[in-house]
Amino acid sequence: MKEFNDLTEKQLASREVFAGKIMNVLVDDIELPDGHTATREYISHCGAVCVVPVTEDGKVVMERQYRYPIRRVVREIPAGKLDGRNEDHLEAAKRELKEETGITADNWHSLGRYVPAPAYSEEDIDMYLATGLHYGEQKLDDEEFLCVYEEPIESLVEDILAGRISDGKTQIAILKAYKILKGTL
Amino acid sequence: MKEFNDLTEKQLASREVFAGKIMNVLVDDIELPDGHTATREYISHCGAVCVVPVTEDGKVVMERQYRYPIRRVVREIPAGKLDGRNEDHLEAAKRELKEETGITADNWHSLGRYVPAPAYSEEDIDMYLATGLHYGEQKLDDEEFLCVYEEPIESLVEDILAGRISDGKTQIAILKAYKILKGTL
Repeated sequence: MKEFNDLTEKQLASREVFAGKIMNVLVDDIELPDGHTATREYISHCGAVCVVPVTEDGKVVMERQYRYPIRRVVREIPAGKLDGRNEDHLEAAKRELKEETGITADNWHSLGRYVPAPAYSEEDIDMYLATGLHYGEQKLDDEEFLCVYEEPIESLVEDILAGRISDGKTQIAILKAYKILKGTL
Repeated sequence: MKEFNDLTEKQLASREVFAGKIMNVLVDDIELPDGHTATREYISHCGAVCVVPVTEDGKVVMERQYRYPIRRVVREIPAGKLDGRNEDHLEAAKRELKEETGITADNWHSLGRYVPAPAYSEEDIDMYLATGLHYGEQKLDDEEFLCVYEEPIESLVEDILAGRISDGKTQIAILKAYKILKGTL
C-alpha cells in the first residue's frame, strides 16, 4: 500500500479549455505526492446555495424542474448559484428563495456545506433551513421554468429513505432539517 | 407565475466542445417549454457507485483523498466511476471497493441513487451498504493516492449532522446506512 503523509497535489500550470455561459472548464498540470506529474480536469464554479423552506404546518416548499443533463423532471428544494464569488451565501439564499418562489423568511438556520462532485467540480453549496415564511411574487429568469408546490416534510423524508428522491442536495438538506425540527429521523 | 404542464426541454442539436481524459463537455441546442430556444452546457458521464463498508464492530472503512478541484483532503466513502455505461452497478461497487481498500463483502444492500449536480452533469451514483467484510490487498491506479482508515459510524453521523463532512455522497449514504442498521438517527 502506498503511504504518503501529505496527499496534496501541487498546481504547476492551469489553462481554460472551455468558457461557456454556465461553466468554464480548466485543465491543470499538477505534481502528485510521489513527485510525478499528471493533469486534472475540472469545472470552475463560484459556489451555490439551497434552502429548505418549511411552513408552519410542516410542509416544505418544493420545486419540480426539468434537468436537461439527466433528461427528467426532478423534485428539489429551491437553489441557485451565487451572483459571484464575493456574494454572501446567506444573502444569496434569501435572493434565490425570493426569485424562485416569491417567499421571504423570518428565521434562517445553517445546515452546513455540501460538496456535490469534488472529483471534477469546484462547486460547494451552503444549505439553509428557513422558517417563518411570507408569500410574495415569483421572479423567474426568462429561460427558467419550474413548478413550485408544497409537500409534508414527513413524506419527503420517507421518499428520501426509500430512494424516491434522487437530487443530492435535496436528500441531505431535508434529512438535516427534519432532524433539527423533530430531534430524530 | 409561468405555468406549463410539460416542463420537458427538447434536444435540437448536440456538439462536443471538450473531450478530456475524465470528462467530456457537451453543448446542446434545446427547445424550452414555451417554444423558445436555448442552450444547455453539461458534462457527459457514464455513472458511478459508492459504498459504505461497515465492520462487525460498527466502523466504516473510509478514505482520505486530496480532491484537487476544491484544494483539500476530503473524508469520503470508497467510490468510483463505472468502467462503461454497460457495467452493472453492483459489480462496479464490488470492483471499486476491492481496488481501493482490498475488501470484499458478503452482504450488499442498495441505498438508492444519488444525483450530485443535475444542473450540469449527467452523473448518477448508485449507493450501497456492504457488511460481512473480508480484508485483502489494495490495487490503486498509478495516479491514485488515498489513505484508508476506519471510523465509528456514530461519530461519522455526528460529524455529518454538525457539518464537519462536506462530501455529498458520503453524507447521504452514511445517514441512510445508519438508519438501516440502527432504525433511527
